[in-house]
Amino acid sequence: MNEHSFKELIKVAQETKDRIRKAAVEIISQEGFFNTRMQDIADQAGLAVGTIYNYFSSKDKVLAYIFKAEMKRRMEIMSDLKEKDLSTKEFLKEFLNRHFSVLIENPHLGRVLVREKDFSRGEKSGQIKEHMSSLIKMLEKLFQAGVKKGEVKEINTHLMAVYFFGSMQGVIEYSLTQPEMQLLEEAPAFILERIDHIFN
Amino acid sequence: MNEHSFKELIKVAQETKDRIRKAAVEIISQEGFFNTRMQDIADQAGLAVGTIYNYFSSKDKVLAYIFKAEMKRRMEIMSDLKEKDLSTKEFLKEFLNRHFSVLIENPHLGRVLVREKDFSRGEKSGQIKEHMSSLIKMLEKLFQAGVKKGEVKEINTHLMAVYFFGSMQGVIEYSLTQPEMQLLEEAPAFILERIDHIFN
Repeated sequence: MNEHSFKELIKVAQETKDRIRKAAVEIISQEGFFNTRMQDIADQAGLAVGTIYNYFSSKDKVLAYIFKAEMKRRMEIMSDLKEKDLSTKEFLKEFLNRHFSVLIENPHLGRVLVREKDFSRGEKSGQIKEHMSSLIKMLEKLFQAGVKKGEVKEINTHLMAVYFFGSMQGVIEYSLTQPEMQLLEEAPAFILERIDHIFN
Repeated sequence: MNEHSFKELIKVAQETKDRIRKAAVEIISQEGFFNTRMQDIADQAGLAVGTIYNYFSSKDKVLAYIFKAEMKRRMEIMSDLKEKDLSTKEFLKEFLNRHFSVLIENPHLGRVLVREKDFSRGEKSGQIKEHMSSLIKMLEKLFQAGVKKGEVKEINTHLMAVYFFGSMQGVIEYSLTQPEMQLLEEAPAFILERIDHIFN
């Protein structure tokens, strides 16, 4: 096999994985993870169930992949923002706007992330805990850097990261499950105002 | 049956229900709701499984009762605080302290509430959504009254209630699942400081 067709194969495989992921988001959002069968995901994706199993050995693996893809996206947002050399406040503003935009564009995804985040105990939930924890660590570093640069007041940066992430998630969870989608539009500015006092 | 023995019967029934509830909290906290069997709850409570079924027709009903009992408790905290004629700020301070105290004393309960809040779709989850929504409504009324009394600045009181509840839940969820129990001690004062700017 030459290099060109190998690249092609990888590209097709990635596209199929994404197609499965998107179909799974739709179905799980409507039916819940517990009630979703691999056959339902296959039907939604317009693929044979055998094809799904070529990519994911179980339903759990599909859900883990949904979280992984979302984590990758947020990491990309973060590193994209880092390159822009923004102040801590501008950084948080941009982060809030982009994070909420993703959910406004795709509430199905938001619902899956919010509802299924504790989908299994033990081993499998490790990845999701990891996800939450690594985002909080990134925010903590941001607040610490802000304190160092004199842009943020002396605060408990760990608690601040937990609080900021928690308030964001709390608003999202309520907006998506009640549902009160319109809150997602007003929330970023409101949340930023609530922490305005931490900036020098 | 005379009135005295009827009252006795009701008392015994209530005590048995509470015993089942407490045993269920222990087991579900460790094993997760999905992995818990009625037999496990019976074993933990030191009762025959038949006795459990006299009180609860299903595992779902046990979990719903755990949430109901917790909702009742928070309603009691709320009405207890209302009688004290506190300022909005003092009210929120007391509410935060009592709410976090319950969790510090009984982290098993906290874990069940946090993890299983979306335990089922459709009908059964209605009660839990209701719970979340009625607490937010109570907080909203509190903020509205605060604005009226001139104690709170003109803000979007609905979004404020969602935000306040969300930030509280977010910190709790992180503290209990990571776990970082010690955050629960510092959190009430920290959260109150974060919203200090809304008070006149």
